[in-house]
Amino acid sequence: MFIPVVLGTAREGRQSEKAAKFVYQEVKRFGVETDLVDVRNYLLLATDNTERSVMAKKWSEIMSRSDGLIIISPEYNHGYPGELKQMIDLIYPEYARKPLGICGVSSGLLGGGRMIEQLRLVSIELRMVPIREAIYFPQVADLFDEQGKIKDYGYYSKRIKTFLEELVWYARALKEARERRILNRRPL
Amino acid sequence: MFIPVVLGTAREGRQSEKAAKFVYQEVKRFGVETDLVDVRNYLLLATDNTERSVMAKKWSEIMSRSDGLIIISPEYNHGYPGELKQMIDLIYPEYARKPLGICGVSSGLLGGGRMIEQLRLVSIELRMVPIREAIYFPQVADLFDEQGKIKDYGYYSKRIKTFLEELVWYARALKEARERRILNRRPL
Amino acid sequence: MFIPVVLGTAREGRQSEKAAKFVYQEVKRFGVETDLVDVRNYLLLATDNTERSVMAKKWSEIMSRSDGLIIISPEYNHGYPGELKQMIDLIYPEYARKPLGICGVSSGLLGGGRMIEQLRLVSIELRMVPIREAIYFPQVADLFDEQGKIKDYGYYSKRIKTFLEELVWYARALKEARERRILNRRPL
Amino acid sequence: MFIPVVLGTAREGRQSEKAAKFVYQEVKRFGVETDLVDVRNYLLLATDNTERSVMAKKWSEIMSRSDGLIIISPEYNHGYPGELKQMIDLIYPEYARKPLGICGVSSGLLGGGRMIEQLRLVSIELRMVPIREAIYFPQVADLFDEQGKIKDYGYYSKRIKTFLEELVWYARALKEARERRILNRRPL
Repeated sequence: MFIPVVLGTAREGRQSEKAAKFVYQEVKRFGVETDLVDVRNYLLLATDNTERSVMAKKWSEIMSRSDGLIIISPEYNHGYPGELKQMIDLIYPEYARKPLGICGVSSGLLGGGRMIEQLRLVSIELRMVPIREAIYFPQVADLFDEQGKIKDYGYYSKRIKTFLEELVWYARALKEARERRILNRRPL
Repeated sequence: MFIPVVLGTAREGRQSEKAAKFVYQEVKRFGVETDLVDVRNYLLLATDNTERSVMAKKWSEIMSRSDGLIIISPEYNHGYPGELKQMIDLIYPEYARKPLGICGVSSGLLGGGRMIEQLRLVSIELRMVPIREAIYFPQVADLFDEQGKIKDYGYYSKRIKTFLEELVWYARALKEARERRILNRRPL
Repeated sequence: MFIPVVLGTAREGRQSEKAAKFVYQEVKRFGVETDLVDVRNYLLLATDNTERSVMAKKWSEIMSRSDGLIIISPEYNHGYPGELKQMIDLIYPEYARKPLGICGVSSGLLGGGRMIEQLRLVSIELRMVPIREAIYFPQVADLFDEQGKIKDYGYYSKRIKTFLEELVWYARALKEARERRILNRRPL
Repeated sequence: MFIPVVLGTAREGRQSEKAAKFVYQEVKRFGVETDLVDVRNYLLLATDNTERSVMAKKWSEIMSRSDGLIIISPEYNHGYPGELKQMIDLIYPEYARKPLGICGVSSGLLGGGRMIEQLRLVSIELRMVPIREAIYFPQVADLFDEQGKIKDYGYYSKRIKTFLEELVWYARALKEARERRILNRRPL
C-alpha cells in the first residue's frame, strides 16, 4: 500500500509546509508507505512540451505505483493553487480508480473547504474516488508552535486516523478490484 | 446487483420522463435489476417529521438493498430540482460506499452539466462514489419522437453502455469490499 | 431600499430560525426596509401548476419591489435545502440585476460555506449579483443563549455591518442603473 | 471603457488562441477599447517573490485602468488551467467591483461549462461581478476554418453581442458607482 502526499503550493513562505509534514508523518505512523511530493519540483513554463514530458514522466512514475493520493493545499481565492493544477493536469490514466483524500489549509476560518470542493470535481474527471473525509487546517498561523509542532495533536491525530481509515478502505477495495480485472483479462 | 433509477423532477409536463424511461429500459437490457423511482412519490411538506419518517422509511427500503444509484434529472438554474434534494436528504447511511451515476437533461445546449457537478458534491458528503461517466440529454424537446422513442439510439445506447460498465465495475468492487468488511466483523 | 430576508429551511426544530431572526433585526437596525420571508409559506407539491402559480405570484410580489435579497439557510449534505430551491425556482425575471447576500448555518465547523458556493452559482443564472461577503454561523447549537440571543454579539454585529454595507453598495448602484435604463427607454 | 481579453492557456498548440482572437476582434468591433493579454507573458516559477512582484506589477497596471474583464480559457479536467489561476492570484484589489465575462473552450460537447462555474466562484472572492452570459466553444477543432475564421459567424456574433451588452451594462453601472463613491470621499 503506497499513498504519496502532495504539497500543493510553491509560494515563498508557504504555511502549508508545516501541515504537509505533519500529515506525512501521520501517514507513516499509520503504517502506510508514503512519500512527500513537493509541487516545487514540478513547476513548468507550460508552453514547452519537452519540459512537460520530463515533468509528466517523473510524476507518472510515482502515481503509477500508488494506490491512492493525499493532496494538502492552501485555498487561494476559493480555488486551488495554479501550480498544483498544472501538476495534476500533467498525466491522466495513472489516476484511475484510486481514492483521493484532500487536506485544506487557510489563514481564515474555513480551512480550505471551497478549494476542496473544486478539487473533488477535478478528481472525478480524473476517474479518481474523492473520499468524504477531509482535514481542515483553518487559521494556520496559530496551529503550529515555533518548532513546527501541531499544538492540538489530540484533535488532529484523531481526525487523520478516521481520514486514513476511509482512504485505505477505498485503496484496498479498488486495488483488489483492479487486480481481479487484470486477472480476467478485461480492459481497465 | 440492484441499481434503481430515480427520476428527479416532479413538475407538470416534465420532459425528463422520456429520458428516464429510456435509461430505465437500457439498464434492464444491460442485465441489471432495477426499478424506476419517481420523486413525485416522495414530495413532502417538510415541516412535519411524521410525514418525513414515512417517506424516509419507503426510500430507505429501496436504497438499503441497492448496490448503486442512477439519478436522472433536469437542471434548473444550474442546480438540482428542490424536490430531488428533499428526497435525497431524507436518509443517510443507506448511501454509503455505493456508486452514483448521473444523467442530465436540459432544454439548452449543456445537458445538465452544471447540475451534475453540484449533485456530485452532495453525493460525496453522502459517502457515495460519483463516477466520471455521465449522460447528457441537451435540447431534450428534440431528442425523442412522438412515441417517446429516442431518435439517435445508436449514440445514446453506446454512451449508456460505457456509463453502466463503469457503474457496475464500482458497484461490484464496493459490494465485495463491504461484504468482506462484514465478514471481518469490522465497523463499516 | 427594500431587502427581504429569506429563511431557507422548513424543517421541524430548525436551528436557523434564531439566526434568521437575528439577521432580520440587524437589517432593520441598519436602516434598510426588510421583511422576514419564511420558506414554510412556499412549500408545494410540485406537480401542480395551479398551486405553483399561486406561490409564484406571492413571491413575485415581494421580489418585484425588492432591491436585493438576503438568504439565510442551513447546509444539508454540502448543498441547499430542497424547499429553498423549489421556492427560488418559482420565478425568474424578478431577480435580475439585484445583489444577493447569503448567510450559512451549520452544526459543524464550516458554517455552510459549501452551500453558499452552490447557491451563488444558482444566483448567477438568475442574473443576480452574489456579493463576496457572507456570514457563517457554524456550530449553531452553541451560538445562541436560551432566550435566542446571540452570545458573541460584538463579532457578529460587526460582520453583518460589513456584509450590509457591501450589499447596499450594490443595491444602490444597480437600482440607479436600472432606473437610468428605464428613463432611456432601453430594454432591461 | 476599457475591457481586456485574457487568453488563459499557455500550452503548445492551444486551440483557444483562435477563439480568443475572434472574441478580441468582436470586442473591438463592438466599440469597446480592449487588449489581448496572453497568459504566456505571466508564467512564473512561483517560489520567487521577486519574480511574482514583477509579473504582478505588469498585470496590475492593466487591471487598474480596466472597467471589466473577459477571460477565454479551455477546460482542463473540469477546472481552469493552472497558469491562468497563477496569473489571477497575482493581484487582488484591482479586480474589485468590475464585471467578468467568461468564454469556455473544449474539445468535447460542453464548451467549458464546468470550468466557467469554478472560475465564477473564484471571481466572487475577488469582489468581481460574474455575469450570467457566457460563450461556449465546444468541439473547438471543428469551429474554425484553415484561415482561423469562425465557421458559424452568424450564431457566434449574435451571442457575443448579447454577452457584451450585459458586460458593458455592468461595467458602466459599476464605474459610475465607484466614481460617485470617490466623490463622496467614502472608502471603496
